[in-house]
Amino acid sequence: MIGTLMKPTEQSRWVQTVALSHPSLEDNTADADRLAKAFADALGVGTVSIGLAMTRRIPDWLREWDYRATGVLFKNRDGSAELVHMEAPDKAEAMYGMAVDLGTTRIVIRILDLRSGKHVGESVFDNPQIPIGPDILARIHHVEKDQGLDELHRTLVHGINEEVKALCGRCGVNAERIFLAALAGNTAMTHLFLGLNPRWIIREPYIPVLNQPGVLSATEIGIELNPKARMLVFPNVGSYFGGDLIAGILFSDMDLSEETAILVDVGTNAEVVLGNQNWMMACAGAAGPALEGGVTRMGTMAGPGVIDRIAMDPVTLDMEIHTIEEGRPRGICGSGVIDLAAALFLCSQIDIRGKLVPDRCGNRFSIKNGLGHLTLVSADRSATGEALEVTQADLDSLIRSKAAMYTILETITASVGMQPQDLKTFFVAGTFGTYINPASAITIGMIPDIPLSCYHSLGNSSLGGATRVLEDPTHFDRISKIRDGITYLELNVNQDFMNRFSAAKFIPHTDKSRFPSVTMPDK
Amino acid sequence: MIGTLMKPTEQSRWVQTVALSHPSLEDNTADADRLAKAFADALGVGTVSIGLAMTRRIPDWLREWDYRATGVLFKNRDGSAELVHMEAPDKAEAMYGMAVDLGTTRIVIRILDLRSGKHVGESVFDNPQIPIGPDILARIHHVEKDQGLDELHRTLVHGINEEVKALCGRCGVNAERIFLAALAGNTAMTHLFLGLNPRWIIREPYIPVLNQPGVLSATEIGIELNPKARMLVFPNVGSYFGGDLIAGILFSDMDLSEETAILVDVGTNAEVVLGNQNWMMACAGAAGPALEGGVTRMGTMAGPGVIDRIAMDPVTLDMEIHTIEEGRPRGICGSGVIDLAAALFLCSQIDIRGKLVPDRCGNRFSIKNGLGHLTLVSADRSATGEALEVTQADLDSLIRSKAAMYTILETITASVGMQPQDLKTFFVAGTFGTYINPASAITIGMIPDIPLSCYHSLGNSSLGGATRVLEDPTHFDRISKIRDGITYLELNVNQDFMNRFSAAKFIPHTDKSRFPSVTMPDK
Repeated sequence: MIGTLMKPTEQSRWVQTVALSHPSLEDNTADADRLAKAFADALGVGTVSIGLAMTRRIPDWLREWDYRATGVLFKNRDGSAELVHMEAPDKAEAMYGMAVDLGTTRIVIRILDLRSGKHVGESVFDNPQIPIGPDILARIHHVEKDQGLDELHRTLVHGINEEVKALCGRCGVNAERIFLAALAGNTAMTHLFLGLNPRWIIREPYIPVLNQPGVLSATEIGIELNPKARMLVFPNVGSYFGGDLIAGILFSDMDLSEETAILVDVGTNAEVVLGNQNWMMACAGAAGPALEGGVTRMGTMAGPGVIDRIAMDPVTLDMEIHTIEEGRPRGICGSGVIDLAAALFLCSQIDIRGKLVPDRCGNRFSIKNGLGHLTLVSADRSATGEALEVTQADLDSLIRSKAAMYTILETITASVGMQPQDLKTFFVAGTFGTYINPASAITIGMIPDIPLSCYHSLGNSSLGGATRVLEDPTHFDRISKIRDGITYLELNVNQDFMNRFSAAKFIPHTDKSRFPSVTMPDK
Repeated sequence: MIGTLMKPTEQSRWVQTVALSHPSLEDNTADADRLAKAFADALGVGTVSIGLAMTRRIPDWLREWDYRATGVLFKNRDGSAELVHMEAPDKAEAMYGMAVDLGTTRIVIRILDLRSGKHVGESVFDNPQIPIGPDILARIHHVEKDQGLDELHRTLVHGINEEVKALCGRCGVNAERIFLAALAGNTAMTHLFLGLNPRWIIREPYIPVLNQPGVLSATEIGIELNPKARMLVFPNVGSYFGGDLIAGILFSDMDLSEETAILVDVGTNAEVVLGNQNWMMACAGAAGPALEGGVTRMGTMAGPGVIDRIAMDPVTLDMEIHTIEEGRPRGICGSGVIDLAAALFLCSQIDIRGKLVPDRCGNRFSIKNGLGHLTLVSADRSATGEALEVTQADLDSLIRSKAAMYTILETITASVGMQPQDLKTFFVAGTFGTYINPASAITIGMIPDIPLSCYHSLGNSSLGGATRVLEDPTHFDRISKIRDGITYLELNVNQDFMNRFSAAKFIPHTDKSRFPSVTMPDK
């Protein structure tokens, strides 16, 4: 289902070539008005505005090009369209767009051909603000320092410019030929990117400077593309629900579907959206303190040599370990921990509270400083030269995280009179979604016990959404509709929430009937 | 009736002060969105957009100003509004707007206070392009020269900047405090002002570069006001119907009235608009060759010492001459010639063809080079030291002009099934309208024989319309409605036109019944 709706076609692009009727005594429309009308018709909008500098060239160009022209168009937040660039239709040079996923930790840039929609190149790199502050909170605190905001803004913009240059070099693209850009990030990152002070985002009553940046001049922001390049910055719903999620919803197409679907994005925070074409509820895990640490911390660790999949033979209790890119193991990420917990549970090596059962763990188990440890990889087989271990504290943290996740899912579905197990479509976004094994997550009761076919990994949905908008103008208008249609649910940690959370702290759940597919191990 | 409709009030201005509700957990709208919404509500529009540079200042300013702000707003052509400038509501400095009537011959600049609507100062000066080319045609030919367009554009912009500076100095206004401007001119002048090549305006099929410039950055055009100042340039209907006329219609309010009115503007060309709130027909005299020269030439001569009114005693045949500012006579303008012709006709000194009757003219009459002359002022009483005379050729030219004017009025009224004498409201715009004596114009059959109370002089309606838009935002949206609602009537010089023209070449008209109020002189 993903990606089949609204598939971009050759006919629906931001680059349009128009052939104008020649002026005559019967039709003496002004040159610029004639051209604007033709582009407006091609794009299916009311009017297209053209800047003064370009207007001055129009009479000569139209006569030279026999009343044909190729233009790059883009919309503004209010739906009005404008002509960004124009050239002779027979000129062969390509015209590009750039999609940006502005992550707190990692940034992804993708260049695509605006005419064919073809992805020309991609670059993934660490957010250059990390040395200033590893996370959002540290960066917001840095803003309090003299020139702190300016430093963060300039570091980010400079870093992106350098990466764009390098990527363009690798792909044989002239950055001056990038006319459009779309960027999605969380609210704080969007603020830092635009040079807006994010200090009030983390202070009650949590007020962003701006939720709807709209479409801006890339040059005004400091991004070096074509001097006239326009940049769409995805809007936020609020301090804790950013443009990355709006892009994710757009990429999932859940706003176009009659069927109610859920989208879960576990990145630095865990964010959840439930809805369909008629309504949408959202909440963010940052409001639920139990999700801090745990899955969150582990989820960001995915990378080469990191254990992402674990299986265990129920008879021999042998562990089968898979690492990303199959290198020597050097750590374990969220999906690996979830697989591990599921396997340990099914083999009775942890109990329904997630506590290690020493009798069943054999010589993998040890106690250090009074804390139970389970060895996954011995020192001689690991990449680090040290044994890879999981402690009882790690498992406790996972239990809290999985309980928080399930509680959030239960709370948001309950807010519309549904239960988690009623869901027919479950999108999992982000790196976490790419690696997670839904069967394991169901086994430990982190996500509802619905058929595995209901689960869909979206990959980098923030980048995907930003790309979509550059591929096809028909997606542009969805952004505001999605944003304006979202009801944000404050996750109040009240008695209801705590009761649900307590019940979810068992594997798979206190109410076993919610997880019929999970075979309880023999005791 | 003029100026009473839609009178601007204190409540409806481009400068608005808003008081925002303070943010809270219940209302955590972003700062910029909260501010934009408040300004949008104050102005009565959907949204107000705010530039990135200003957005960066908003969080600090709002907290410093206790969530109050004073802003200068303006609209764009598509109706969207934007915040041009913002400051502390308690700051006392005035904020100004500038209206410009961009005439081919003369330019008028008016500065007004955007809050009170008060006119602060005005400057009238010759179009600085005159030394390059005295009229539109000469200037358009100059564009063919290397750098010709640039020279014309720069000369005009520089000239306006110098005059703005001088006017600001005289009024004690800081030009940086001028945030809004509105300019109305004919199509060719608008092109030259914007640096657009007007060469195709005078060549079949007469195609302007642009009919709807909309709202531009004054700085981008080169006009030195506040660096962020926005400038509305009135749209044209076509090559021969410019923004000055649209401004004139706006100033007359004829587009708001149920009653059908006519507006006649005699400047370099003669333009006529007929209509009401439901429809509007327009035509321009440039399409009627008979109007070139004649009234047109004389009408531009109004100035101090120029004869603008003439009366004659029917018994003594003494001439009573009035000059502008009552100086010694140095010439005669259009209204003076019309008064003269009416007086000569009523005293039988010219016949119904406009030919001088030597027997009745007495010693004022002479023949030089075979051409009849009539002396108005003897050499010893004129300002020039030479006798002021009117020749038979001048009178012939007037007869052609008045016939052309009446024919145009007849043609445009006939196009909607009316007759000139059906009109209840007759607006006369421009310098010509200021000086003309309708009774004399009726006597010679230039304008229809309707009650004098039907005639209204609008003065400089182009400047008036531009001023209106700066005084009150409610007028802004009328501009596009007026423009889009106009049907342009091509004045084809066909047999119908020529028949009407021939019939109108008599005083007052071949069909005497159309002018019942004109007492025919005894023969």
